[in-house]
This record gives sequence, C-alpha cells and structure tokens, in this order.
Amino acid sequence: MRNEISKERSSFLAKDYCQGFIKHCRFEVEDVKWGYFQSRVRIQEVHRQQDGFIHAGVMATMADHTAGYAAFTTVPEDYQILTVEFKINFLRPAYGNALLCRSRVIRGGNKIVISESEVFDEREGAEALAAKALVTLMAVHRDDLDSKN
Amino acid sequence: MRNEISKERSSFLAKDYCQGFIKHCRFEVEDVKWGYFQSRVRIQEVHRQQDGFIHAGVMATMADHTAGYAAFTTVPEDYQILTVEFKINFLRPAYGNALLCRSRVIRGGNKIVISESEVFDEREGAEALAAKALVTLMAVHRDDLDSKN
Amino acid sequence: MRNEISKERSSFLAKDYCQGFIKHCRFEVEDVKWGYFQSRVRIQEVHRQQDGFIHAGVMATMADHTAGYAAFTTVPEDYQILTVEFKINFLRPAYGNALLCRSRVIRGGNKIVISESEVFDEREGAEALAAKALVTLMAVHRDDLDSKN
Amino acid sequence: MRNEISKERSSFLAKDYCQGFIKHCRFEVEDVKWGYFQSRVRIQEVHRQQDGFIHAGVMATMADHTAGYAAFTTVPEDYQILTVEFKINFLRPAYGNALLCRSRVIRGGNKIVISESEVFDEREGAEALAAKALVTLMAVHRDDLDSKN
Repeated sequence: MRNEISKERSSFLAKDYCQGFIKHCRFEVEDVKWGYFQSRVRIQEVHRQQDGFIHAGVMATMADHTAGYAAFTTVPEDYQILTVEFKINFLRPAYGNALLCRSRVIRGGNKIVISESEVFDEREGAEALAAKALVTLMAVHRDDLDSKN
Repeated sequence: MRNEISKERSSFLAKDYCQGFIKHCRFEVEDVKWGYFQSRVRIQEVHRQQDGFIHAGVMATMADHTAGYAAFTTVPEDYQILTVEFKINFLRPAYGNALLCRSRVIRGGNKIVISESEVFDEREGAEALAAKALVTLMAVHRDDLDSKN
Repeated sequence: MRNEISKERSSFLAKDYCQGFIKHCRFEVEDVKWGYFQSRVRIQEVHRQQDGFIHAGVMATMADHTAGYAAFTTVPEDYQILTVEFKINFLRPAYGNALLCRSRVIRGGNKIVISESEVFDEREGAEALAAKALVTLMAVHRDDLDSKN
Repeated sequence: MRNEISKERSSFLAKDYCQGFIKHCRFEVEDVKWGYFQSRVRIQEVHRQQDGFIHAGVMATMADHTAGYAAFTTVPEDYQILTVEFKINFLRPAYGNALLCRSRVIRGGNKIVISESEVFDEREGAEALAAKALVTLMAVHRDDLDSKN
C-alpha cells in the first residue's frame, strides 16, 4: 500500500465526508492520505448521553464513517463505499473537549475492504484511546448502487 | 425472565431515553416492557448519507441506545448501563420514511447484560429488516460511575 | 426465501461439512434445509478448557462452520463460501453432554450472505442458549477461489 | 502498562495454555510478557477446511485463547479469565506451514479486559496478516466461577 491520491481526490473526499448525518454530528476532516482518514469533532451538549459522557453512538458513527472514507481513498473514483458491518469496543468513558478518529485500511480489495478505526478522547491535554473498531466495507460501482437491494 | 416493571419506572426510562445525542438524533420511544425496548425515528435530511440512504451511524446509534434501555428495564433503579461493545450488520440499504428499532435482552445478569437489536426500515407500507446488532452492556452502580475510569 | 434444495444437494453438503478441522472437532450434521443448517457434537475431554467448561473455540468454530453451510444451501452449486468475519457472544458457560448449533441465513445475496448461529448446551435434559453469532460470508465462484488472494 | 510477571507465573501460564481443546488443536506457546501472549501452530491436515485453506475456526480459536492468556498475565493469580465475546475478520485465505498469533491487552481492568489478536500465516518465508480479532474478556475470582451461571 504505497499508493498516493491526488490533491483533487483528497479535497473531493474531504468535502464529500461532511454531509447529512455527519454534518448534523458536526464532524470535521483533519487529514486524508492513501488508505488513511482522520476526523475530529468538538464536543458539545448534543454529543452527550444521560450521564454526561460522550455518547457511544457518536464514537460509533465517527468510527464507521471515517473507516468508510479511508476505504474511499483506495478505490477507483466511480466506486462508492457501503458499510457491511462493524464492531466497536468502548475502552473507557469519553468526557473530553474533542474526539479524534484515525482510520486505516488494513486489507484493501476491489470488493471487500477492511478498515480499523481508533477514537481518541482529547482531555486534559492528552489523548486517551476511547474506542476501537473493525469495519467491513464493500466497494460498489456507482451504477450498481440501486440494484444492490 | 418473567418479571415486570412498574408504570413509574417505564415512564422514567421513556423520558430518560431522549437526551443529548439521542434527542439530537430525534429518536422517540414507542414501547417499554421488562427486557424489551422499542424506538422509532421519522427520517429527515439530517439522517442521510452521501448517496441518499439512511446513514449506518443512525442505525448503529439506535441499535446501541435502544439495546441499552432494554437492559435498563432489567436492573435495579440505582444502576446505570454502559455499552462495553457492539457489532452491527447492515442487511440492506435503508431509504424509507422511518426506522423502527426493537431491542431484547437475550442474557440478563447483574454485571453483564447482552441485548439484541433489530432495526427495520419502514417503506412502501412494509417493514424490512435493515440491520441487526449484538450489544454487550455493563450494569454499574450509580456510585461507581466516576471510578470506572 | 421459499426455495428448496434437492436431496442430492442436501446429502452432498452434509458429507462435505465433515472434513479436516471439523472432522477433528467431531461435529456431526443433524438437519439441512434451504437457508438452514443444524449440527451437533457430543462433548468429550478434547472439547474442554482449563476450567472444565466447553471451550469458546469449539462454539465459535461450530457457529462459523454451520453458518457457512447454511449459506451454502442458498447459492448455486459452483459457488464456494468463505467467512469474511464473525462475532460471537458467549451467554453462559457450557458444560453439558452435547452442543447443538442452529444456523439461519438472515440475508441472502449472490455476493454477501449473512447468517446467524445459536449454540445450545444440552444439559440436564434441557437446552440452554450458550452462544450467539452473527456471521458475514462471501460466495465466491469456484474458479475465482485461487485468485482471491 | 509497565508491569512485569514473574518467571514462575510465566511458566505456569505457558503450561496452563495447552490443555483440552487447545492441546487437541496442537497450539504451542512461543512468548509470554505482561499484557502479551504469543502462540504458534504447525499446520497439518487436521487444520484445513473443504477447499484446503486453514479453517477459520482454527484462527478464531487461536485468536480467542491467546487473547485470554494475554489477559491472564495482567490479573491476580486467583482470577480466571472467561471470554465474553469476540469478533474476528479474516483478511486473506491462509494456506502456509504455520500460524502465529500475537495478542495484546489494549485495555486492562479488574473486571473487563480487552485484547487484540493478530494471526499471521507463515508462507514462502514471510508472514501475512490473515486475521484480526477484538476480544472482550472477564476476570472472575476463582471462587465465583461456579456461581457465574
């Protein structure tokens, strides 16, 4: 995996990342490389759960979506990425000012791509690993998206 | 599992469910029984992803949170529920007007509780199973929440 | 899923099931239907772990392999099944005389198939649900098996 | 996690590892450190599946059991380890002469421990990452093992 992506593709993916539910979740893109994607969110009241911690759903959404865009960096431009499944472990409660998500493709492919996401809780000037996910994605040609169902 | 929960407890949990991130996601409670929780969300633009489908993160958040509240119905009132981990499979793209989530406790316990969530896509007058999750939860006494970290 | 499989196909799959590691594990086939597979193992010393319980690996292998053969019943005869990933929850320690595994396809497809496996511990004349798994499988044409890597 | 384990404990765990199903699977211990466990198996016919590849169940059992023993290195000597659940992704078919499993504790704790396992396929003089697993384990005091059910 020593490939590269163009500036144009990188900019496109960074913009494409922030739509719909992800915009609603206020996630932002920090870094894009071939096989790698990094996102961040500043924590606000809308991200918390009943005990004041950051909601597991925020971390899961971030882990899934960022993993998907890491996969996006490795497939041809006329392919879309769909999540087949993911699993996420919550390692410690997150309560900091921001979350950072680093996603890496650990197994590329022209049909199935496997990414790994690590979600860090930024607190008291340090990063704590708050969650880790394994994500199975499927690359689907744009023209086959409708017929998938 | 032939227990029951009181009207008061049921009303409390239904209200407690809709806070922070979950309120932001606009999920609503539909049904509460001992070992069972059901939620629903009317789909709007904020729930979609880049291809117009409902975002996997919406389904994951719903599956996780509703599974957690199913667990809540089975533990003493001074216990809180934290998600240890979950895994979710996306069975078909969801694009309907609403999602319905049914969560059941499949293994109770005073420390670890396992729930199963099914997320249905309401479309064209029918329900299609869009996602299925297995969720591992931990019951933590209210006084031990801080020390968990 | 109202399809059927032929007697020949059913017999072939029942025989095909018990090879290599599975034979070494002493699993046996009990029932084969379209989208469904059931296996059983009589527990012996070789199936236990350090505390005398049945080893999680026995249940995981059974859940995976039986899920794969449930998928096999739904694909054309020139397709093979590979496991993409699975997740398994162990609900209670198993210590009985036999394990029974029931696997069902919950989402068919010509590329990705999702099965669910339930492993029951037969003890004291009753079945206890000991483990539950969600399994993602891939149907690969026989001729493409080598090139998969 | 800068702790150490004694030579005695390390030897005990290495011996304890190889019993029952694990002995039947012919796994061997290669390395034991605090928070880390490494095992290996020479592949024979009994480890294969119907297409000649190494069976997913072999990798899953190895990933689970080795993850458990990585957890064992971090808990007091009167605690036992039980697997709560695990998820494993198979990244490429394995067909080599041996499998190597490296397991690390990524989150310690006195109740819940999370380990990560990587299974490598030794082939043509190189290691290929064949599977990766996230494993949730529970530390249970020896005296509480019976009452767990």
